[in-house]
Amino acid sequence: MTQLLLASRNAKKLAELRRILAGAGVEVLGLDEVAPYPESPETGATFEDNAVAKAREAVAATGLPSVADDSGISVDALNGMPGVLSARWAGRAKNDAANLNLVLEQLTDIPDERRTARFVCATALVLPDTTEIIVRGEWPGSLVRGPRGTNGFGYDPIFLPDGETRTSAELTAAEKDAVSHRGRALRLLLPHLKALSHA
Amino acid sequence: MTQLLLASRNAKKLAELRRILAGAGVEVLGLDEVAPYPESPETGATFEDNAVAKAREAVAATGLPSVADDSGISVDALNGMPGVLSARWAGRAKNDAANLNLVLEQLTDIPDERRTARFVCATALVLPDTTEIIVRGEWPGSLVRGPRGTNGFGYDPIFLPDGETRTSAELTAAEKDAVSHRGRALRLLLPHLKALSHA
Repeated sequence: MTQLLLASRNAKKLAELRRILAGAGVEVLGLDEVAPYPESPETGATFEDNAVAKAREAVAATGLPSVADDSGISVDALNGMPGVLSARWAGRAKNDAANLNLVLEQLTDIPDERRTARFVCATALVLPDTTEIIVRGEWPGSLVRGPRGTNGFGYDPIFLPDGETRTSAELTAAEKDAVSHRGRALRLLLPHLKALSHA
Repeated sequence: MTQLLLASRNAKKLAELRRILAGAGVEVLGLDEVAPYPESPETGATFEDNAVAKAREAVAATGLPSVADDSGISVDALNGMPGVLSARWAGRAKNDAANLNLVLEQLTDIPDERRTARFVCATALVLPDTTEIIVRGEWPGSLVRGPRGTNGFGYDPIFLPDGETRTSAELTAAEKDAVSHRGRALRLLLPHLKALSHA
């Protein structure tokens, strides 16, 4: 069976990709199931840069077709930031709550109509023959003024998807997968992933 | 003598404008020298928005020709932020050191060649006849990795002007005035300020 490496140690992401590719003739491995290699820090200027760099590195180290993603939140009143710095917006030693609270503080004086934001996910598939396929999923919404909900992670508690009355931390995992930036990117990549087994 | 209001309580800015307009037949007043009026918070999306809003408000309240400015630092790796949020980047309760340290933390992984930044100052002159003149001064440079120098304020200790070996907090006030964003904006506005006495 064709093997595919997901360059991630996130068990939820791995399970999701396995679920999506069930029956497609593709065996999905995670980083914990291949020989360790030195992983570079994410220093790209864009989500796409980071995703493709991570996937290239995985191909170079393992010789397997590899998928990697990078995602974050892009806030219009912050000129699209935190962006690629989403996970370390309040500093490297900080956590999800510190990041989220800093964004709320920075937006204190920003009126409701200018609190628009979107979650963004870039996903890259890189093949040993150097073919690169990069897709982007976006999930538009706006930022509420205080955290609500306990599902998800990161900025989910302050993100109100367009057309929703619940924050993304108040959606179930299945509801979120169906509409989220990650779900959208993965669906765009799906035909290319399924084609692997025929290659 | 023609009166001009500088919509600021900053004694240094007031002294600077008086020095520049000495002998031009224009008397410069500060906010502390006119009847108090309610000042709106700065919620504009751009430096220009904030400067012109502040000057319009001053004209409406006093009937005097009014000058106002808004300034901050624009960091390329942060898509131009902190920008209009420069003074409250780490939150409203924070101070210069907290703001500066947060930017340094956010840029930890950013390589030297991508640490470019510029100080920006927008200055607006609004006349009672509704004429509005808005100018912008920029001071390009890059961000060092640790604060140096004790002059100035704000982000001066981490800003290395292009062509300089000293941060802007290591320059004297006179050296800074000659090349800074504020100095540049003020010089662009100068002909219009001097014309006031002939109007």
